[in-house]
Amino acid sequence: MSSQKFANPPKRLEGIDKNVWVEFVQLVLDTKAVNLGQGFPDFFPPDYVTKGLVDAAQNSGPLTNQYTRGFGHPRLIAAISKVYNKFLGRELDPAKEVLITVGAYGSLFCSMMGLVEHGDEVIIIEPYFDCYEPMVKMAGGTPVFIPLRLRDSGSNVLSSADFYLDPAELASKFTSKTKAIVVNTPNNPLGKVYRREELQMIADLCIKHDVVCLSDEVYEHMTYNDAEHIRIATLPGMWERTITIGSAGKTFSVTGWKLGWSIGPSYLLKHLQTVHQNCIYTCPTPIQEAVARGFELEFNRINSEECYFKALAEELKPKRDNMARILTEVGFKPVIPEGGYFMLAEISNMKVDLSSEDPDQPYDYKFVKWMTKNKGLATIPNSAFYSADHKPLAEKFIRFCFIKEDSTLAQAEKIIKDWKASMEG
Amino acid sequence: MSSQKFANPPKRLEGIDKNVWVEFVQLVLDTKAVNLGQGFPDFFPPDYVTKGLVDAAQNSGPLTNQYTRGFGHPRLIAAISKVYNKFLGRELDPAKEVLITVGAYGSLFCSMMGLVEHGDEVIIIEPYFDCYEPMVKMAGGTPVFIPLRLRDSGSNVLSSADFYLDPAELASKFTSKTKAIVVNTPNNPLGKVYRREELQMIADLCIKHDVVCLSDEVYEHMTYNDAEHIRIATLPGMWERTITIGSAGKTFSVTGWKLGWSIGPSYLLKHLQTVHQNCIYTCPTPIQEAVARGFELEFNRINSEECYFKALAEELKPKRDNMARILTEVGFKPVIPEGGYFMLAEISNMKVDLSSEDPDQPYDYKFVKWMTKNKGLATIPNSAFYSADHKPLAEKFIRFCFIKEDSTLAQAEKIIKDWKASMEG
Repeated sequence: MSSQKFANPPKRLEGIDKNVWVEFVQLVLDTKAVNLGQGFPDFFPPDYVTKGLVDAAQNSGPLTNQYTRGFGHPRLIAAISKVYNKFLGRELDPAKEVLITVGAYGSLFCSMMGLVEHGDEVIIIEPYFDCYEPMVKMAGGTPVFIPLRLRDSGSNVLSSADFYLDPAELASKFTSKTKAIVVNTPNNPLGKVYRREELQMIADLCIKHDVVCLSDEVYEHMTYNDAEHIRIATLPGMWERTITIGSAGKTFSVTGWKLGWSIGPSYLLKHLQTVHQNCIYTCPTPIQEAVARGFELEFNRINSEECYFKALAEELKPKRDNMARILTEVGFKPVIPEGGYFMLAEISNMKVDLSSEDPDQPYDYKFVKWMTKNKGLATIPNSAFYSADHKPLAEKFIRFCFIKEDSTLAQAEKIIKDWKASMEG
Repeated sequence: MSSQKFANPPKRLEGIDKNVWVEFVQLVLDTKAVNLGQGFPDFFPPDYVTKGLVDAAQNSGPLTNQYTRGFGHPRLIAAISKVYNKFLGRELDPAKEVLITVGAYGSLFCSMMGLVEHGDEVIIIEPYFDCYEPMVKMAGGTPVFIPLRLRDSGSNVLSSADFYLDPAELASKFTSKTKAIVVNTPNNPLGKVYRREELQMIADLCIKHDVVCLSDEVYEHMTYNDAEHIRIATLPGMWERTITIGSAGKTFSVTGWKLGWSIGPSYLLKHLQTVHQNCIYTCPTPIQEAVARGFELEFNRINSEECYFKALAEELKPKRDNMARILTEVGFKPVIPEGGYFMLAEISNMKVDLSSEDPDQPYDYKFVKWMTKNKGLATIPNSAFYSADHKPLAEKFIRFCFIKEDSTLAQAEKIIKDWKASMEG
């Protein structure tokens, strides 16, 4: 039996069953390719971070393995508030202005389901972390897309700073139906770090049109050279209309811990709490306890070079530069990111025969699948981060992740060089 | 500023912002009362279980702290399938018939959002774990309630087996709009363990009306005396229309780990997967790795007395009997549960002055708040587990949790006896 009544899902799920991660993670599992695809470190997190989890599991009394407060473990919301009081320049109310969620992903979901009504519009800037789109649709909203435009900087080297928001185009996207805009800085997959004047332009429009800003800042501590991470919630008039979203996975190099947070004014956050309490109720206690310990430690050394918020970016910068060198040498054209741990690269110069791949897919999907299966090197297609209509703007790029062991990057380098040699041979 | 546009949440959240756990967990935090309220053990989980989490955090390579497969960590879905192949008497496809979620709570949410369309009806048997109702509403469905009826057994002692489903009443709840029925066995808060003929009656109606059964079996291993846990998915014709939901928190005494699973046919499960991938994407890897190790160990000793599935019930039975004795001695009238780790008790004989409590609440809410604040003993009101219209059927009972250290139960005994003495004094 396979009842017709259940053949189709409820309307809210129509067209959102495909997921780039499900597809490409499975491809890596199947091919055992060198993985520069999904964004996670392949090295150990800092010792004190994993030790926090060990202590929570075995050394801190019986209760850290049992349910804790639903909207956030008391020790964690206190620790996060202390840190973000500094970042945001205000005194947070931990119980009402901080919500702990299953990853930043969970914060995004609670935000969409908690704020977006059927028929509302949500502005999404392309390229975007792919889940924004199905989440808006699941909430009954309509995503309105605006691509970053590429300016000709005159330089031979592309930078994420060359991608910009056209002011008139952005203004044209705001309507009476607009409920929210999602801003992701530093951006995944591009690595763009929005400058103050860009954020001010977004803020002005949010205030003018009474719109909430969902600010996905999970790569907040990873900026390079003189790029500075600015929090839109600190701009005048924006605290009251911003949900700032962060991630322990990104902050402490433990993506598998799936712990994130939403910070915002209580009159907005209470709607996210309602969603949270009716979909998962509470996050794992030992992980919350461990992250609390991590934040307490970092708070005490926040201005030192040892602080992991700074140390990780220092560790990543040479990996970024190494990745750019490898890609450039063989004919990819990288876009040097100002932040985050991803790098887009133009693939036009890499001539390959993709006739074995499903022709109905965008060029970069075919390219990545071919490369994973035939060269043993996995990445993610850039057009996964664009809406259906705008994929043609994107499909000549693929995304590399460089938060990897140097030995992993060296394996990738060897694959790419051998490949190049075979093309020239 | 506090924009009017955001004063009210989207329609899907209307009337579901209140939550009994948020309210009563906070009351315990505020009063530091002896806590027989929320259902969690106050003793350490088995050593090997927490050691699994330690190993996942520090001793099993870098990757168990990073993202794993979205629908379930490969090692965990393999281990769960081996165990449930035995329980369900069939060979599960781990990739397509098992979904790992954030607690059983997450499985319930994915089921409701994945299967229930706007306007569908979902039958809920009272008393019920409270989240069923807001989850149905959030999915746009209509909950249809049917209370268990209390038969007069002729005995002076109440048993959870005295509560029964009236066949005609149940049949009358099925309509052309019915999409699902939620069955919870062993039941929380009552402790009823459904007998085969009761489940067969439900199954017959599900098949007749083409309805899915969401079978919440989180207390599956906790049955007492000769009560036997029967899985409705094993009844003829029911595998194809059942989602079986389980919980690592309940199974391994780690409620704070928030890990659960849904098991069912792939044509249904794929809709749950779509919800899961768009609300949290994946569950914490170290916890999944630890639970996988736990299942592997138990599988190897599944028929022995040491198997925790059996050992925990053996540990709980004397606590249950002790709890019943304490309550009876002072004038509560307990309902002896056949399963689970909760006990309802009738409170009519306990004369107290509740005039200081908000009069708009059900009697048991007032009683529990008064007792928590004035006697330092926290429980949960039974009417939290009934729909608004049926709370009068419920408000003379409160729920005690007995998965507690003997020393905690002794503290509760002392409180109750002192209280009784003061009433008689």
